[in-house]
Amino acid sequence: MTFQQAVEKLNTIEKTLYALGHAQSVLSTDGDTVAPKNSWKGRGMALACLGELTYRQLVNPGTGEVLETILQHRSEADEITFRRAEVLKESYDDLHVLPMDEYIAWRELTNEAGAVWRDAKEKSDWNMFAPYLERILANRRRYAALKSPDQPAYDVLMDNYEKGAAMEMLDPFFRTLRDELSPLIREVASREKPVPAFMRGPWPVDRQRLFSEKIMALEGINPMNCTLGETEHPFTSGDNKWDIRITTHYHEEDPFSSMFSVIHEGGHALYELDIRDDLQFTCLAGGASMGIHESQSRFYENIIARSRAFCTPLLKILKEVFPVQTGSLTEDELYSTINLSGPSLIRTTADELTYPLHVMIRYELEKAMVTGDLSVKDIPGEWNRLYKEVLGVDVPDDRRGALQDSHWSFGGIGYFPSYALGSACGVQMLRQMEKEVDVWGTVAAGDLSPVTAWLADRIHRYGRLKKPKELLAGAMGGPLDAGIYTEYLRNKYMQLYGI
Amino acid sequence: MTFQQAVEKLNTIEKTLYALGHAQSVLSTDGDTVAPKNSWKGRGMALACLGELTYRQLVNPGTGEVLETILQHRSEADEITFRRAEVLKESYDDLHVLPMDEYIAWRELTNEAGAVWRDAKEKSDWNMFAPYLERILANRRRYAALKSPDQPAYDVLMDNYEKGAAMEMLDPFFRTLRDELSPLIREVASREKPVPAFMRGPWPVDRQRLFSEKIMALEGINPMNCTLGETEHPFTSGDNKWDIRITTHYHEEDPFSSMFSVIHEGGHALYELDIRDDLQFTCLAGGASMGIHESQSRFYENIIARSRAFCTPLLKILKEVFPVQTGSLTEDELYSTINLSGPSLIRTTADELTYPLHVMIRYELEKAMVTGDLSVKDIPGEWNRLYKEVLGVDVPDDRRGALQDSHWSFGGIGYFPSYALGSACGVQMLRQMEKEVDVWGTVAAGDLSPVTAWLADRIHRYGRLKKPKELLAGAMGGPLDAGIYTEYLRNKYMQLYGI
Repeated sequence: MTFQQAVEKLNTIEKTLYALGHAQSVLSTDGDTVAPKNSWKGRGMALACLGELTYRQLVNPGTGEVLETILQHRSEADEITFRRAEVLKESYDDLHVLPMDEYIAWRELTNEAGAVWRDAKEKSDWNMFAPYLERILANRRRYAALKSPDQPAYDVLMDNYEKGAAMEMLDPFFRTLRDELSPLIREVASREKPVPAFMRGPWPVDRQRLFSEKIMALEGINPMNCTLGETEHPFTSGDNKWDIRITTHYHEEDPFSSMFSVIHEGGHALYELDIRDDLQFTCLAGGASMGIHESQSRFYENIIARSRAFCTPLLKILKEVFPVQTGSLTEDELYSTINLSGPSLIRTTADELTYPLHVMIRYELEKAMVTGDLSVKDIPGEWNRLYKEVLGVDVPDDRRGALQDSHWSFGGIGYFPSYALGSACGVQMLRQMEKEVDVWGTVAAGDLSPVTAWLADRIHRYGRLKKPKELLAGAMGGPLDAGIYTEYLRNKYMQLYGI
Repeated sequence: MTFQQAVEKLNTIEKTLYALGHAQSVLSTDGDTVAPKNSWKGRGMALACLGELTYRQLVNPGTGEVLETILQHRSEADEITFRRAEVLKESYDDLHVLPMDEYIAWRELTNEAGAVWRDAKEKSDWNMFAPYLERILANRRRYAALKSPDQPAYDVLMDNYEKGAAMEMLDPFFRTLRDELSPLIREVASREKPVPAFMRGPWPVDRQRLFSEKIMALEGINPMNCTLGETEHPFTSGDNKWDIRITTHYHEEDPFSSMFSVIHEGGHALYELDIRDDLQFTCLAGGASMGIHESQSRFYENIIARSRAFCTPLLKILKEVFPVQTGSLTEDELYSTINLSGPSLIRTTADELTYPLHVMIRYELEKAMVTGDLSVKDIPGEWNRLYKEVLGVDVPDDRRGALQDSHWSFGGIGYFPSYALGSACGVQMLRQMEKEVDVWGTVAAGDLSPVTAWLADRIHRYGRLKKPKELLAGAMGGPLDAGIYTEYLRNKYMQLYGI
């Protein structure tokens, strides 16, 4: 096969992979938003079949030869073509680890486990979910052993979400977070503030929908390319920059829960919306890693939208949409309210300060369950023990404990660290950005475009063209440093709580 | 290949066809409802590729052999298996008419033509759309000549939507409609009634959404299996009975426009929702023909929902949802209002009496454009001439004239007659149903389930298992008879207008 022939075949392969991928992602998003509840059966069948077609399209000797041919002709290939082959080869190698029948069984298992988890969570019944997690862990151990027998299994799994993430680096990272943040969390908890009266609302969902539109506009999201749906557990999906979907969940009693979902998912969306046109419809049209993706979503959610400066434009919008409810609210009160902190049970609604310790607990549990040191039946007990030890809270049931997150059900073991890594990276990006952009001046003026332009220039536009390491080096101004992250949190919360 | 091997292969083929079909239909529905406006590009690419995969899956010597093997073993095959092979063979033969590159070009042409038509309609510019219609007609003539060189091309095209439909039968059918209805339409027009004051509303869209929910419940649609979306031109989609979608379009100034869309699409939905479980995920899970599908949708929309009896439960719901707007409205006023009749420009919003003549005009135009007797550039002139001659209205522009319907843009030439055939068949079904069911008593009591059970028993549950002819024979009590349809309309409108 000549280099030219290989490039032509690569184009055809990627077109088909794009189509199959797009179909699967629209089916899933549709299923999580507007599809009838009973549609899961037909969707499951379709997704299984499309997954099999994807596997066949990617994992076969022909595709292998195409990729090898391009990788062997580095000097002839332009940057994009070479990188496409490189990234596709990673997917090829990853899928290739398991033979097709095992791969299909794995997809069926996680599909079923997702439904069982939902049910188990509702009933707060760990025993319902436990046999599925057993099988998921067994599969992940086997996968890790086949893929890289000389590495610790948990490192192999984390590598899927964050290239190069390893316990060697994450152990000291999380140790610093715990050591630095625990005393501060205790201090803040001792100065607990009451929930202010204006929060009583009411906050009708119809008005919250209008609020979401205005928040998306403030964040700079073009509705021609990105729409908002409603779902149980908010997420972002999309396969090209002209078709991104974010989702939220409205709570009648609190407008900020949905607002922060919109802004968080909006951060994921802005990443995808800014990827270069010439990478679209190839495997390079997507975020470079889950950690970098979370760095963007959490950057907008916390660093920007929970800042004092953001309260200026935010209060204006609140008064437009909820004039009665926020009649006498001030920017300072608003700032204090959206940063109320305290040890809690649920990761997704945790405040910025306690959040990383929720992640740390999951990291410790996952390490132990992957080696088998922690057996599945003992996970809830260990979960509850750690929540008491680290955050000082008593977990009343598994629904609000070990069953709260979906990640294990879809096989995403090794994903959680990305959240904390993303948060830490985001703060280091802020420090670099502040050298070049009047971040707080423009945010206070209600204009986020200079912030987004900076991130687009350093991160977004490259999609997967550059490797995560390269991207981070250009945006963070130095290696990962948990101290910069904890210093940011300390300054913010000491000021907020008058410590 | 043994019979058993063929059956196993048929199962695999149908699983893949189901998955590819479901993906395409969810992508299209999503595109017409909640997808971002700019997403068309990526969706077009994905649909083209999935269409190609479908073609390859169906049209290949292997599939041909599977189907032939089963068809040659009629005695060994159970009823469902044999019919699956028969129906799939029809699709095979139909796709096979055009070679794959022409088939792909055809899909690209109609995809593009759809976008151009939308734009041309907005600008009321026939010349924009004309070159696309030229190419579409050329393709359809070629397709008809290849598929069945000895039949008139228009008969071949109609046969795709309604097996056996032919001008020989439709010419006298439409002649009767025209001869019988024209004098009545003129008489009704001379007794024009004013639009009653309550119609001024207002009719807020949020309340109309709630109204839709109640209307769907009244029609007997289970929301666990069928959801309602919002779109420009309402439609129904779905590939299995647990996942049907209907759509509507809300107009602030009129609650009945959306209501009749919901009920019409709901009729399509009830058909699909009632198909037997053992036909699901095969090619037999769908309506037997477009005419039969339209017979069901128009049955609920007109025969049921525009009946005097239906006004009893309808008024109750209206008073619940719009108490201020309908405070003094009576059932008789409501009945009169939802049956206001008069010659008009737009087919989709035409009343029950004038509707079939809108269809007749399109039938005459299509016959002439397929033979080439009517050139594309002359279509708008001929359209306007016929509207004046048949309905007595002056067409002010092509947006409200020859550009109003999407059908030609998607290549659906030969589809329109199904609407009128469906309406006529529906009335004949009613006459049979009345012999066994207290139709108007149960409808007035707000219970449509006996009506739906009768239709399910005669039509719905079979899907494509029985042939359209067989189904109709069992439900209509005799052959198609335009006189039964016109008599129904004459009785209804003479009473309504005191003629």
